[in-house]
Amino acid sequence: MPYVSAPSDLARDHAARRLAALATPPGALGRLGELAVWHAACRGRVPADPPSRPRLVIFAGDHGVAAHGVSAFPPAITGAMVRTFLAGRAGVSALAAAHGVGVRVLDLGVDEDFDDLDADVRAALTRHKVRRGSGAIHLEDALTPAEVRAALDAGAAVAREEMAEGADLLLSGDMGIGNTTPAAALVAAGLGLPAAEVVGRGTGVDDAGLARKTEVVQAALDRVGTRAADPIETLQALGSADLAAATGYLLAAAQDGVPVLLDGLMSVACALTADRIEPGATAWFAAGHRSTEPAQSLALAKLGLEPLLDLGLRLGEGSGAVAAVPVLRSAAVLLRDVALLSDLGA
Amino acid sequence: MPYVSAPSDLARDHAARRLAALATPPGALGRLGELAVWHAACRGRVPADPPSRPRLVIFAGDHGVAAHGVSAFPPAITGAMVRTFLAGRAGVSALAAAHGVGVRVLDLGVDEDFDDLDADVRAALTRHKVRRGSGAIHLEDALTPAEVRAALDAGAAVAREEMAEGADLLLSGDMGIGNTTPAAALVAAGLGLPAAEVVGRGTGVDDAGLARKTEVVQAALDRVGTRAADPIETLQALGSADLAAATGYLLAAAQDGVPVLLDGLMSVACALTADRIEPGATAWFAAGHRSTEPAQSLALAKLGLEPLLDLGLRLGEGSGAVAAVPVLRSAAVLLRDVALLSDLGA
Repeated sequence: MPYVSAPSDLARDHAARRLAALATPPGALGRLGELAVWHAACRGRVPADPPSRPRLVIFAGDHGVAAHGVSAFPPAITGAMVRTFLAGRAGVSALAAAHGVGVRVLDLGVDEDFDDLDADVRAALTRHKVRRGSGAIHLEDALTPAEVRAALDAGAAVAREEMAEGADLLLSGDMGIGNTTPAAALVAAGLGLPAAEVVGRGTGVDDAGLARKTEVVQAALDRVGTRAADPIETLQALGSADLAAATGYLLAAAQDGVPVLLDGLMSVACALTADRIEPGATAWFAAGHRSTEPAQSLALAKLGLEPLLDLGLRLGEGSGAVAAVPVLRSAAVLLRDVALLSDLGA
Repeated sequence: MPYVSAPSDLARDHAARRLAALATPPGALGRLGELAVWHAACRGRVPADPPSRPRLVIFAGDHGVAAHGVSAFPPAITGAMVRTFLAGRAGVSALAAAHGVGVRVLDLGVDEDFDDLDADVRAALTRHKVRRGSGAIHLEDALTPAEVRAALDAGAAVAREEMAEGADLLLSGDMGIGNTTPAAALVAAGLGLPAAEVVGRGTGVDDAGLARKTEVVQAALDRVGTRAADPIETLQALGSADLAAATGYLLAAAQDGVPVLLDGLMSVACALTADRIEPGATAWFAAGHRSTEPAQSLALAKLGLEPLLDLGLRLGEGSGAVAAVPVLRSAAVLLRDVALLSDLGA
């Protein structure tokens, strides 16, 4: 794979000078000022226009652990929610329509064949499908070595398709009952933490479910042992087809120099993994929303990212990233459109 | 004045039932779910459309205390910034354009006559002008009894003009060098707190300026004494023409049943005062952004409001309220557009 370059230092310095020259009190734009400078550095121009073609890709897949009591919902919900995305009736659909974000849903590992869908819809949905369901990580590897490579490549290919069509901001979303379990395992492996420190309630397991989920993650970590030192091996052993694809997608965005707004736990677990594969990838990422999952906050702290929003969303789907798109727009227009002190003839 | 009615309990209950019936995990919409229910209750319909005509009114005025070392900026900046709003080149102008918010700036008490402006622009700007500069509150009352009434009425009249033209969300903004000093005094008076607990650095005074500002606020509170028990008397003694007008504007919104997104310290100090005048007015208010000023957080806590955003903005102008408009849009579209579980045939 190509290496990740850093965003433009030249543009960052220029943007910081422009920020300081705006007709506003020093520091008055707070985090929007910092975000605007980051965005300009990523875009390599000052001022940078706000994103005109933000695109969300939702990576869908099922997880063997879902049959082992780690989720409040049955695995059949994954496919039902994929259909809801296709119908434009999910939570993230409403947010994306309101904020001008294009949405694409991809089946990487859903445990059904979607034979009921129109052939062209089904073909687009499943074009990058790696397998039906990923392995139950406390018992077996999630993927084979060939599958993890196929999933990483699929995610990168999708990112490159989107960038070729003009995407100037990429967002990653997720759908998959049970997916907070492998995502927490990826974070635990990446940070060298025990399961008890990373596992949360996901969409709402009770105390017994939380205990079971913690046992599953710890068993998975114990099973994998020192293989977790390698990030690709980590994805193979502890991840899933959808999580590996999201990782490849984030890596490709960083490699090709398009900024990313991260979502909740799944997105951030993949960002952490991407940064393990290509150190420095995080320079292209901003965090959209703070998740209620402890693993997300731990991974963000490791990556040095602070979420823009903290609205208590625990919907998944990329909703926290989409909700943050207007915040990035706010930042970009401030740096672009506010008068300079020098313009005011002061 | 007419009394304030509560938002519709019927619509709130209906909205809460609809929220619970959405095809999302229970509680997954977090604060956006709560915000959507509040918005529907204010609009009296379920689902309520997102705001289609949000309007920001910026109340501008000068303050006698600005000549007494409480601000990092000279008073002449107030008029210069009014001209920047009129030119659409201020921070809030950029945010408002990006998020579809209409902006109107009104001179209630700026210490100049704007004779250089075109006659029609000047007439619209100064139509509700109460005086040039409000009194230095540590030495004298900010306003006469007739002026406080004129300012309250002006704010109410402006709100009613906006509502008559279809505004379905009102925001209040401010411009006035030194205005965090009277605003902190309004909060101290409203909460019965000493100056030292409420005073912050505004747009950036140094330690000596902070000490001076605290002395000024405490001297004002000491001068006014038990008169601060009455909220109108508080505005007269400790406020200003612009703050009294913003209070009248917020009161009229609550009386006529249009929801409001509050901004930073000035907006929230006026909301607190409005709620003292008409208890229950706060039911029509949501808080857009957490200010770095301690008085804003103290007043919000008293009103039971939690800001939607915390981005470190300390720009004033209504910028924090405008930045939060997309968050309210997110909330409204989720409650309106997400599939119901019953629609999915589950």
